[in-house]
Amino acid sequence: MRATDIITKKRNGVELLDSEIEGLIKAYTTDEIPDYQMAAWLMAVYFQGMTDRETAALTMAMAKSGVMVDLSQVPGIKVDKHSTGGVADTTTLVLAPLVAAAGVPVAKMSGRGLGFTGGTIDKLEAIPGFKATLERDEFIANLQKYNIAVTGQSAIIAPADGKLYALRDVTATVESIPLIASSIMSKKIASGADKIVLDVKVGSGAFMKNQAEAITLAETMVRIGQLVGRETVAILTSMEQPLGAAIGNSLEVREAIEVLSGRGEPALREVCLTLGSHMLVLGGKALTTEAARRQLEGLIGSKQALAKFGEFIAAQGGDADIINNTSNLPQARYVLEVNSDCQGFVKEINAAQIGYAAMLLGAGREYKGQVIDLAAGVVIKCRIGQYISPKQPIATIYSNDKSKLDQVALILKKAVSIHTQAVENPPLIIGLVTKNGLYID
Amino acid sequence: MRATDIITKKRNGVELLDSEIEGLIKAYTTDEIPDYQMAAWLMAVYFQGMTDRETAALTMAMAKSGVMVDLSQVPGIKVDKHSTGGVADTTTLVLAPLVAAAGVPVAKMSGRGLGFTGGTIDKLEAIPGFKATLERDEFIANLQKYNIAVTGQSAIIAPADGKLYALRDVTATVESIPLIASSIMSKKIASGADKIVLDVKVGSGAFMKNQAEAITLAETMVRIGQLVGRETVAILTSMEQPLGAAIGNSLEVREAIEVLSGRGEPALREVCLTLGSHMLVLGGKALTTEAARRQLEGLIGSKQALAKFGEFIAAQGGDADIINNTSNLPQARYVLEVNSDCQGFVKEINAAQIGYAAMLLGAGREYKGQVIDLAAGVVIKCRIGQYISPKQPIATIYSNDKSKLDQVALILKKAVSIHTQAVENPPLIIGLVTKNGLYID
Repeated sequence: MRATDIITKKRNGVELLDSEIEGLIKAYTTDEIPDYQMAAWLMAVYFQGMTDRETAALTMAMAKSGVMVDLSQVPGIKVDKHSTGGVADTTTLVLAPLVAAAGVPVAKMSGRGLGFTGGTIDKLEAIPGFKATLERDEFIANLQKYNIAVTGQSAIIAPADGKLYALRDVTATVESIPLIASSIMSKKIASGADKIVLDVKVGSGAFMKNQAEAITLAETMVRIGQLVGRETVAILTSMEQPLGAAIGNSLEVREAIEVLSGRGEPALREVCLTLGSHMLVLGGKALTTEAARRQLEGLIGSKQALAKFGEFIAAQGGDADIINNTSNLPQARYVLEVNSDCQGFVKEINAAQIGYAAMLLGAGREYKGQVIDLAAGVVIKCRIGQYISPKQPIATIYSNDKSKLDQVALILKKAVSIHTQAVENPPLIIGLVTKNGLYID
Repeated sequence: MRATDIITKKRNGVELLDSEIEGLIKAYTTDEIPDYQMAAWLMAVYFQGMTDRETAALTMAMAKSGVMVDLSQVPGIKVDKHSTGGVADTTTLVLAPLVAAAGVPVAKMSGRGLGFTGGTIDKLEAIPGFKATLERDEFIANLQKYNIAVTGQSAIIAPADGKLYALRDVTATVESIPLIASSIMSKKIASGADKIVLDVKVGSGAFMKNQAEAITLAETMVRIGQLVGRETVAILTSMEQPLGAAIGNSLEVREAIEVLSGRGEPALREVCLTLGSHMLVLGGKALTTEAARRQLEGLIGSKQALAKFGEFIAAQGGDADIINNTSNLPQARYVLEVNSDCQGFVKEINAAQIGYAAMLLGAGREYKGQVIDLAAGVVIKCRIGQYISPKQPIATIYSNDKSKLDQVALILKKAVSIHTQAVENPPLIIGLVTKNGLYID
C-alpha cells in the first residue's frame, strides 16, 4: 500500500490495519517515506484520532524500530515508572531505591533533560563519582546483585519515536492523545518493562492542563498496556504547584535523601508512596496497595531504603557518603533568601515560572547538549493555602552567577501570589486508572 | 510569526490574517518553509476549511508568487474561461474563436495536458504549422490585431500553486474546496483575466462527483472573484458522459470545426453557447445572456466564428485551410468501428473508461513530457437514452498501433452499458452561480 493511500484512509476516518501502521513506521524509520507524508498523516491522526488497536500497533511498531531490551535473565517482574513531567518532580530518585529495597527490580534507562531541570541522569551525576553510563553486562550484573541499575538511554531505544517526536514538534502535532500515549509506552516497552506505573500530571504546571484530557491519556495508555500484554496502572496527580520543594540537580538529590530519611516535602513523599505502592503490587511484592504502603513506610523508617540508595550509588562509582553528608554535593556560591513583600494566604505558585527561573540559573537546558550547573536551583518554602507573614522567606535561590540573583528573585516573587482570603490546598492524588477502570478520589 | 504557530492556529480553527497567509506562501515558494510544515498545514486546512477571506488571500498570494501578466494595453475586458476538467471537453477550441468574433479579447495561456487527452496547446499543435509558443510582444500584438492569441503557459505563472499542487498530490490533500478553488483562481488572475467564466463539471466523469460539492466549489470561486475584484460566473454542467463525441487531439480540432460550422454534437454546442453567452455579458458585448446567445448563434450561422478560427490559426503560423478541409489534420492509420453486441437503451457511458481508452491509444499522457499521438483517439457514436440496434456502431477507434485495437474495443464496449428499459438523457446545464447567488435549472 502506498503512503498516500494510508494518509487518505486515516484522513477519511477508516481504521488502519496493524500491517499498514507497521509498514508506515518501518518505512519512515528507514527514510523511505519522506517527512512531508508523515506530517500529513500525523495531522490526519490529530483530527481523526486512533482506535485502541491502532494506537497499540503504533506503540509496538515504534518500540520495535530499535533494540528491544531483554531483561528476562533478571529474575522478578520488572516494573518501570514514567512521569508525564512536571516541576520539582524528584519521584524517580526516591522511588528507584525505595522499591528496589522492597524487592522489585529497578532497571532504568533514563534520558538527559531538556527544560527546567536536568533529567534523572543529570541529577544522579550531581553525586561525585557517579557513572551514569553502564555497558549492557554491567547493567545486568548490577541489577542482579543490587536489584537496581540506572543508565543513560542509548539512541537505539525506539528511534522511530525520536524521529516522529522531532517532526511532531515542528508540525503542531504534539497535542494528540494517541500520539502522546504511544510515544511514552513505546519507550517503556522497548526498555524491557514487564509492567508499567504511570504518573500522569494534571494542572497549570503540567503538559495536561485539564483533568478530562489527562484521564483520556491515562486510559489510553492503560488500554495499550492491556493490548500489548504489559499491565499498566496510571495515577493522576496534581501539578498546580511544584511537587517537591527543590528544583535543581544537586538540590533534588538532597531532597530525595530527605524523603528517604522520612523527612522532606510531604507532597513529594505522598506521591512516591502512592506510585511505589502500585509498583509493589504489580511487581508481586504486596497483595494490596495498603499493605504495600506499610511496607514502603517501614523501609523508610528503618533507613533500609536510604541504605539501598547508598548501595546503588556506590555500585555505580559514586560517593555513597552523601546519604549522610549532603555537603559533598555541588554547592552554589551564592544563596539568597527571597522574602514576601506582603502577608496573606498563598493562592497560586506558578510552577512553570519557577521552573523557568531554575533554568535561568543554569539548572536546566534551553538547548540540547548545553552544560548545566549541577549546584544551581531554587527551593520553594511555601505551599498553596499556607499563611505568609511579611518578610517571611518564600524561596531560596542557589546560584553560581551573582548577576542572576535579582532577576530570579523578581520572577519568584511574581510566581507566588498571595491573597487576603484563605485558600485551600488542592488535592494531590486525583485519581487512578487500572485495567478495571477509573477511580477518582 | 513562526510556521508552527500558523499551523497551530489553522489546526485550532482560528482565522489566519492575510499577512500570515502571504508570509506562508512567500516563504514556501522560496524554500524557507519545508514541505513537511506545509503538508501539516494543508491537512489542517483539509479539516478546518478556510473562510472566504482566507481563501482570497491564498489565491492572491499564489497569483503573486510569479509573474502577474499585464494585459492593460489591450483594450476591452479580458474574460477568461476555465473548466474543472472532463472527457471530450472541446469547449476552449470552440469558444476562443467564437467569443473573439463577438469582440471579447481572448488571451489564453494554456498548459499541456496530463491525462486522457492533451491540453489545449496539444490539440492546437495537431494543426500543421501551428506555433503554440509566442513571445510576449507577439502575444500582445496578435491580441490587439485579431482579438485572440493562445500561448503555452510559462512556468512563472503562479509557481507557488504548482509547488503546492505537487505536494497536495502526495499528501492526500487534493480534495479540499478552498485549496481547489484558490488553485484555479490564482492561475486565471495571474494570467491577466479581468473577469472569469468557470465551467464546473459534475458527475461520474468529473472530479466533482456530486452536485452539492460542485455547488460549494462554484460558490467559493465566485466569492473569491468578488473579494479580489475579478467578477466570476460559474456554470455547473453535467459530466455523466463525454461532452463531445471526439476524444483525441486532431479529432477534437475536427469536432470544434464542426461546431463552429453549425453542426457537431449538440451537447458540446449547447455548453459552448451557454459559457460563451456569459463571457459576452461579462465582457460588455451583450446586455443579457439571451441576446448574447442570439449573437453567438448568428456568428456561427454566418461562418464568421469559423473564419475567426482560420484567422487565428494563420496568425500563429498554422494551416488555416483545415477549417475547410480537415483531411490535412493528422490521420490515424487504423480506423475500427466498434459495434454493439446487443440492443436496448444506453444507460451509462463511463467517461473515465473512455478517456482511459483514448490515453491507451496515445492521445493523452500518462507521465509528464510523454510524446502523444495527435491522430489517435476515439469518437463516441451514442448518447445516454439513445436506442441501439444490434450491430449498430457505438464508437470508432483511431489508432496508429494495430495491436491496441482489440483491447480498446473491449474497454469501449464495457464502458457503454445498454439496458432493456428506456433511460432519460440527464440534464446538461445543471445550474449557475453568479455574484447574486445560485440558480438551479
